[in-house]
Amino acid sequence: MTIDRESDHGDTLGEVGELDALKRIFPRLPWATAELLGPGDDCAVLAAPDRRMVISTDMMIHGPDFRLAWSTPYDLGWKAAATNLSDVAAMGAVPTGLVVAIAAPTDTPVGSLETIADGLREGCEALAPGCGVIGGDLSVSTVLTIVITAFGDLEGRTPVVRSGARVGDVVAVAGTLGLAAQGLRLLFDEGVVEGEPDAVAAAAVAARHPEAVAAQLRPAPPIAAGKAASLGGATAMLDLSDGLAIDARRIATASSVALDLSSEAVGGRVQLDGGEDHSLLATFPASAALPPAFRAIGRVVRGEGLLVDGVAYTARGGWDPYAGWDGAAG
Amino acid sequence: MTIDRESDHGDTLGEVGELDALKRIFPRLPWATAELLGPGDDCAVLAAPDRRMVISTDMMIHGPDFRLAWSTPYDLGWKAAATNLSDVAAMGAVPTGLVVAIAAPTDTPVGSLETIADGLREGCEALAPGCGVIGGDLSVSTVLTIVITAFGDLEGRTPVVRSGARVGDVVAVAGTLGLAAQGLRLLFDEGVVEGEPDAVAAAAVAARHPEAVAAQLRPAPPIAAGKAASLGGATAMLDLSDGLAIDARRIATASSVALDLSSEAVGGRVQLDGGEDHSLLATFPASAALPPAFRAIGRVVRGEGLLVDGVAYTARGGWDPYAGWDGAAG
Repeated sequence: MTIDRESDHGDTLGEVGELDALKRIFPRLPWATAELLGPGDDCAVLAAPDRRMVISTDMMIHGPDFRLAWSTPYDLGWKAAATNLSDVAAMGAVPTGLVVAIAAPTDTPVGSLETIADGLREGCEALAPGCGVIGGDLSVSTVLTIVITAFGDLEGRTPVVRSGARVGDVVAVAGTLGLAAQGLRLLFDEGVVEGEPDAVAAAAVAARHPEAVAAQLRPAPPIAAGKAASLGGATAMLDLSDGLAIDARRIATASSVALDLSSEAVGGRVQLDGGEDHSLLATFPASAALPPAFRAIGRVVRGEGLLVDGVAYTARGGWDPYAGWDGAAG
Repeated sequence: MTIDRESDHGDTLGEVGELDALKRIFPRLPWATAELLGPGDDCAVLAAPDRRMVISTDMMIHGPDFRLAWSTPYDLGWKAAATNLSDVAAMGAVPTGLVVAIAAPTDTPVGSLETIADGLREGCEALAPGCGVIGGDLSVSTVLTIVITAFGDLEGRTPVVRSGARVGDVVAVAGTLGLAAQGLRLLFDEGVVEGEPDAVAAAAVAARHPEAVAAQLRPAPPIAAGKAASLGGATAMLDLSDGLAIDARRIATASSVALDLSSEAVGGRVQLDGGEDHSLLATFPASAALPPAFRAIGRVVRGEGLLVDGVAYTARGGWDPYAGWDGAAG
């Protein structure tokens, strides 16, 4: 992680105005191959070749969701793309487009907005090539707010929902478990000076723990594994936003079954409880060969809720340092 | 306008939590007939029968976009729906679905969020029956922020863009001109006490000028006229968000023509400059019969920019009391 100070000079959004800021941002945004009509009219038009569109929307808000002392504008753009692409992947769909609404304080350098666009572009290129930004809105707020709505194409397949897990299925995961939460804990523990989020301290943490901090600030969820899971017969799927324990229970509840995880395959408590990996948790028929990105971590059994090694796991799971957020945004 | 004080008691978002708040909000949201899979999974699935989807996103932010002393939660839900539906209509499409992302302060009564949902529902029912909310996100911010992404079906028609106006076309409008701006000016002039937005003063203004204040706080743009314009051969169209003068220039510039408006047909300065009507401005071939909702207000001629009675109109147009927004939100 490098702390991006380049964007801290130059014109501000308030000085430049929305229209001129947009002119500088547009060329940096990724183009969507499914775009039939792009920015410039009241709406964009996106191709929906299979007559259905998969749609998800998600907000990232300065304070509850990120600290500007820890995340560069590039990180914010990347993470906003990654977390939304992951929701599309979790349906077994291929991401085709995003619309991006950003509200920023008037003293925000336009350079920072350009760098958010760079993160969006490189995140899309790395994780979901062909997916791009087809439209958006730029506004003013005292709180930096990024809202992405993501679109995907099911390519004729049935959407993979949370309610399809069947007794006997294998539980499998693609991507990291607990790593993003480890990164966040490291930042909260060591990326602070006198209790306040600090950019220099965060850079030092990132140098010591590059993988964990990157997983938190610039996650790279296995987007292509979503389609692979669907083709491989996945019966249920979701993306791990709140941690394995909480999200596994969601599949169990929606499917009226229990998920029994192997502690050996999962790892430990941080793997169970840590959120924000945006890895894919799926269930597959026992007879199916798991797609390469997935590894088995348990079984679907009769019952309800979550088991670990056959024993009910009742800890709530998840670790949310923002939950008691008091307004200090860092 | 009635100032909604009902929502000012009861549990707050912070006390109840996101999940329980959503449980109370969901039943109040309008159902979309095009919804194939609704809330509860990582994505919703919306029908796109003509293999294309028309998409627009728009933010409403406390401070720059509205005053809580003037707008009730119901008004905010209604206006958020109306302004987004209008962008879909301006493409000649029929609105099919919305996703709604709301970030609110922790001390927001859940009752207020329910009332926003009521406004969304009744706005959709009144303006675009069959269109509903297919998904969303609820989060916490110190600034009340409502972000809607709207979807529409072109039903096999070509989207009506801004660039299609041709010399000889008739310029026509459906909906009010300047009325929303009149309402806003009345609120800024008379809906204040010692310079601060005031609910009681606003109620008195609304009682004296019900149409103008309603046009500002709870606009009812002619959504169905968008499809009618497309069927009637409209060559260009947009929705009047920034005022007739600014938006007419947009069509002129995109189409490389000039728009010559008749001062008699338009009315006066407030009709030319006032924004936020979300009426539809369109151009039609001279040979076409205008759809019933539209009235002629001018001609497309050779040249560039905007003319009134044949004379160049160079005033910027638009009146934006929020432009110099200093952070006081009212």
